[in-house]
Amino acid sequence: MTRYAFPSDNWAPADPAVLEAISAVDEGFEKPYGQDAPSAKLQDMFSDLFEKKSFVFPVPTGTAANALALASITPGYGEIYCHAYSHIVTAEAGAIEFYTGGARLVPLAADRGRIDVVALREILAKKVPRGINAMQPATLSLTVPTENGALYRPEEIAELASIAHGAGLMVHADGARFANAVAALGCSPADLSHRAGIDTLAFGCMKNGAIGAEAVVTFDPVIAGRMAVLQKRAGLLSSKQRYFSAQLMALVQDGRWLENALLGNARADRIGAAIAGKPDCQLLVPVETNQVFCKFAPSVVSRLKEAGFEPSRWSALGPDSYRLVLSFADSDTRVQQFIDLLNPAPAGRNM
Amino acid sequence: MTRYAFPSDNWAPADPAVLEAISAVDEGFEKPYGQDAPSAKLQDMFSDLFEKKSFVFPVPTGTAANALALASITPGYGEIYCHAYSHIVTAEAGAIEFYTGGARLVPLAADRGRIDVVALREILAKKVPRGINAMQPATLSLTVPTENGALYRPEEIAELASIAHGAGLMVHADGARFANAVAALGCSPADLSHRAGIDTLAFGCMKNGAIGAEAVVTFDPVIAGRMAVLQKRAGLLSSKQRYFSAQLMALVQDGRWLENALLGNARADRIGAAIAGKPDCQLLVPVETNQVFCKFAPSVVSRLKEAGFEPSRWSALGPDSYRLVLSFADSDTRVQQFIDLLNPAPAGRNM
Amino acid sequence: MTRYAFPSDNWAPADPAVLEAISAVDEGFEKPYGQDAPSAKLQDMFSDLFEKKSFVFPVPTGTAANALALASITPGYGEIYCHAYSHIVTAEAGAIEFYTGGARLVPLAADRGRIDVVALREILAKKVPRGINAMQPATLSLTVPTENGALYRPEEIAELASIAHGAGLMVHADGARFANAVAALGCSPADLSHRAGIDTLAFGCMKNGAIGAEAVVTFDPVIAGRMAVLQKRAGLLSSKQRYFSAQLMALVQDGRWLENALLGNARADRIGAAIAGKPDCQLLVPVETNQVFCKFAPSVVSRLKEAGFEPSRWSALGPDSYRLVLSFADSDTRVQQFIDLLNPAPAGRNM
Amino acid sequence: MTRYAFPSDNWAPADPAVLEAISAVDEGFEKPYGQDAPSAKLQDMFSDLFEKKSFVFPVPTGTAANALALASITPGYGEIYCHAYSHIVTAEAGAIEFYTGGARLVPLAADRGRIDVVALREILAKKVPRGINAMQPATLSLTVPTENGALYRPEEIAELASIAHGAGLMVHADGARFANAVAALGCSPADLSHRAGIDTLAFGCMKNGAIGAEAVVTFDPVIAGRMAVLQKRAGLLSSKQRYFSAQLMALVQDGRWLENALLGNARADRIGAAIAGKPDCQLLVPVETNQVFCKFAPSVVSRLKEAGFEPSRWSALGPDSYRLVLSFADSDTRVQQFIDLLNPAPAGRNM
Repeated sequence: MTRYAFPSDNWAPADPAVLEAISAVDEGFEKPYGQDAPSAKLQDMFSDLFEKKSFVFPVPTGTAANALALASITPGYGEIYCHAYSHIVTAEAGAIEFYTGGARLVPLAADRGRIDVVALREILAKKVPRGINAMQPATLSLTVPTENGALYRPEEIAELASIAHGAGLMVHADGARFANAVAALGCSPADLSHRAGIDTLAFGCMKNGAIGAEAVVTFDPVIAGRMAVLQKRAGLLSSKQRYFSAQLMALVQDGRWLENALLGNARADRIGAAIAGKPDCQLLVPVETNQVFCKFAPSVVSRLKEAGFEPSRWSALGPDSYRLVLSFADSDTRVQQFIDLLNPAPAGRNM
Repeated sequence: MTRYAFPSDNWAPADPAVLEAISAVDEGFEKPYGQDAPSAKLQDMFSDLFEKKSFVFPVPTGTAANALALASITPGYGEIYCHAYSHIVTAEAGAIEFYTGGARLVPLAADRGRIDVVALREILAKKVPRGINAMQPATLSLTVPTENGALYRPEEIAELASIAHGAGLMVHADGARFANAVAALGCSPADLSHRAGIDTLAFGCMKNGAIGAEAVVTFDPVIAGRMAVLQKRAGLLSSKQRYFSAQLMALVQDGRWLENALLGNARADRIGAAIAGKPDCQLLVPVETNQVFCKFAPSVVSRLKEAGFEPSRWSALGPDSYRLVLSFADSDTRVQQFIDLLNPAPAGRNM
Repeated sequence: MTRYAFPSDNWAPADPAVLEAISAVDEGFEKPYGQDAPSAKLQDMFSDLFEKKSFVFPVPTGTAANALALASITPGYGEIYCHAYSHIVTAEAGAIEFYTGGARLVPLAADRGRIDVVALREILAKKVPRGINAMQPATLSLTVPTENGALYRPEEIAELASIAHGAGLMVHADGARFANAVAALGCSPADLSHRAGIDTLAFGCMKNGAIGAEAVVTFDPVIAGRMAVLQKRAGLLSSKQRYFSAQLMALVQDGRWLENALLGNARADRIGAAIAGKPDCQLLVPVETNQVFCKFAPSVVSRLKEAGFEPSRWSALGPDSYRLVLSFADSDTRVQQFIDLLNPAPAGRNM
Repeated sequence: MTRYAFPSDNWAPADPAVLEAISAVDEGFEKPYGQDAPSAKLQDMFSDLFEKKSFVFPVPTGTAANALALASITPGYGEIYCHAYSHIVTAEAGAIEFYTGGARLVPLAADRGRIDVVALREILAKKVPRGINAMQPATLSLTVPTENGALYRPEEIAELASIAHGAGLMVHADGARFANAVAALGCSPADLSHRAGIDTLAFGCMKNGAIGAEAVVTFDPVIAGRMAVLQKRAGLLSSKQRYFSAQLMALVQDGRWLENALLGNARADRIGAAIAGKPDCQLLVPVETNQVFCKFAPSVVSRLKEAGFEPSRWSALGPDSYRLVLSFADSDTRVQQFIDLLNPAPAGRNM
């Protein structure tokens, strides 16, 4: 994979602690379908982590996590307000529609991937009262941090959630990189979830060291009841659930999830800072988490590719735009090599 | 878990080769969503294993495997003929209905969990011609081996499949313990699948050493195309698919899947033979694979429980009935201890 | 249609009062989608008819009526207990599964189409506690009167409903011929619905004189809310709803629905009585409503066919079995002709 | 209803020919579920009307018509390209998502409700190749004429359909006012449907004189096969289908559908022409069919309301905007009264 420059944290290998945890639970026979001891312990660990009684459902993929969470709070006739670039709209192949039985994803105008208060108020106002011929407002779905790497502060989520709840909606957070948001904000998981009004959270672990497990979290026993039923019905409850739970335990244990996120964020920050001062390079949005959105002149890209650093195009932000996603699993050496390559070549070689 | 006597191969730990294979693919960054090299190699390994171009989809659970396979060959208005005790009817929480959008599971009368030719012919005859007010015949689903541990011989499957195909149906096999059937019959996987007319196969790996991966297999590129779309849409395609593919590779490599199945079968056979000759014990069906269905007098059960061998009740076969499922991960020592306990206690202690 | 002998009340023409009512509401412009005056008045008429605040939803077909009602009380993961011969199982092409998003119809053993108390208790007992791997008990669906023309008395329904409610289920009645049951029992619609514990009722009008409208009735505002949403979403709410409401009004007005049912019942009774005393004829079940299930020797059938009275086979009750369904729209003359033909031909002509 | 000024053709009463046709088929007993003679004859009448073998499915509502047609050509993982203001998006309560099992409605930028060639080419180009993580392009849905009363000429539809077909899509037309478009263009139904590349058509009859029947039309036997199955499964096939078929027959017979449409169009044209020349009034779009979109100053609205002509706001086109929809059932006298009221009041009375 040396051809690529930080293509996605999705491409990263496992956190070694995750593989160790899998081995650790691999002790003889265990009850199946989540009745095992590790899965029970996981509930407590998440309750501690979120400083509140939590219900956690390990599922194998991020798409499954969002779909399970959203379908547990959204009826088939409901509208889900989200950003036009949100992963649930662009990259989950209709899973939300499938799991909900036909709910509609309604994109809201927004800034840098962040749904703003005005846009939300507007659509809710326009939609009330809803006649029998219209779909019904049901859910607000935020991506935390956004697909463009932007942060919502806890009070910003709280404001959006408060508006949504006021209109009878539920609030979901797609937290595929939730750890990176918490790390960047220096707040607690509680601050960025239930204290801010989040009803269901897809707590991302795959991009942070797990090899096949994400966590769906809710704080409401009624929602949790629906999740338990749908998790099985959707084929997401493993007979050997302990191996899924173990992955989440490894990350939650001793704050590993946060350390990993801090590493990715710091590396993105270093690259962002380097880009800012270079000719033929341009930061497109401030670096807030572990993602860097930037422009590179073709000469820069050629230089990078020659050295085994082909960056990934990000056409949503226009031509010559690229996205770099930094991971706990990257090496600082490689990050430094990349940064060095951003410097213009000595005179005579520059294009 | 020493309280239990061979409760299910579902409870077993991993085959160490599976954990090694996971570590082996854990090398740096890799393309996500099944574009990785191990997942590509897996296609070839299955094509070799089945002696025919095969399309294999690793999914995290057995329920997902059956649901994905059946939904790829069954429309929402279709009827799926199966056994009343089949796992898809009794233990998948409506997953088949969910994935297919409402197809109906129609139980057929059968012997020892095996659908017989006469019952199948009858329902197909009764149903032709189907008016517009009826659901339409769509699929035959066999469990290979059956939930009661019974075998279909390749020619028996071929006869059923031929009847089904003749009526325009597709044929699915729930092969949660497919390996045990192949091992018991001494045939090839090809003999028991495409050569016998199976269109889609849930090739079980969880009960045979994997920790979170089953294989959905088809031999038809059109069906495979539908599976690829639905796998993602159902949240079953991992961004880190390599770790799922690796588990299947470990089992297919060097015939590990077959060795494991042979071990379980042999242990079941030993226990079955022991039961046959003991007072207060009774075999309910012949032991054909790795499952033993038997009756134990209460005195026997007490003796077993005292020694840490609580057997699992199997009420479908009546009172005092039990099921023992033997696994590659059991120990021969423990099997022998169990067998020894079946002997009546010396005079004076017997109840 | 003179070829046929009382094939079904489905084949009958309109009650003239229905066509008159349609003309009566055809006065100029009216608000669409059920906001019209006749549709509002219909709510009151049904509340009067059922002696309780009722919510009525006119829908175009009986299949839609059952599907809308059942989907308003049954989740996709739910089981619906019903008779194996019930119309929702045999003749609605999977509509229940489609509307509910995959609920399962579970046939119960029963006598003459009537679910008995023991069978219901058994399945509910067997199913408790339900694990996460099973579908969940949700709904009891009775056909009133049954597909075999049998009656449940109000206290019988009450007993079944009480058991169902005690287990947390909801109770639906497919009343395609509800009027015939009320007429036969001499009770009130209230006695046979909410007073007996029915939560949702498909009140049949098509077989009783309407040309394109059935009534879905509930007495619970929460269920009614779900029905209102799904009625539109399923394409069952007409922009010119007044013409659907008018049909129901015509039948409810002045007890027309009951008169029509009494006519059909009385004619069935006459034919039933005639059959009872004839050679080569046999009543298969007592005539309780407007349906006659009987056996005719081939000689009788030949005689009937020659005279333009081809009876409809009813193979569920065995060879030589037939079903006659009597309607308000039949003529007494024709009924008498049919009865006369049941008499053995004079000597010399008999086969 | 004299309070309102031409609120919608949905509010109109029946064409008397429709009620007569209903009475005409009300002759004794008939086969149910579309096996009746009138329903068979309807197939021929539509084949004649469209100058091609046609398959027509009478269904009770326009929402059902669009949903049945779209679900017969669109898989659950498909995208349907349409206008943001299209009825299927704004006013069918999620019926399309329900019937298709989760297909997504993707609004295209467009002019006056008309999808333009550039926008369609763009989205199709952007979407190719589609990865496994995206929903798949499936269907183009046009409204003919559009919700804003605009026309597509046959060659414009042909160009859009050709682009769509070239990309593997199917093409649906929501023709709730199809008759008005044919009447305005002076073309044939064939020109505006199959000759232009339309695969499925919701041929509107409710706004044109029917009381409870729309026609779903296709020219492809494979699509027709799917429609037949889904029509029943969705509860849209009446046991007394003859009464639905009769309504469509009445309109198709002797070109009644076209006469009615011409009447509505002519009245809209008269009002449009009157508005054009008046102070405080403004046509917002050219009048092409039977709809008038206009602005009225508050003084004009007051005057109209006083005289029993309250116009309906149409907020999509901004403040003070109104929609008038003219019907065959309006009276020319009333149209003239309305026009007269548009003239400014004599001096001294004007506001």
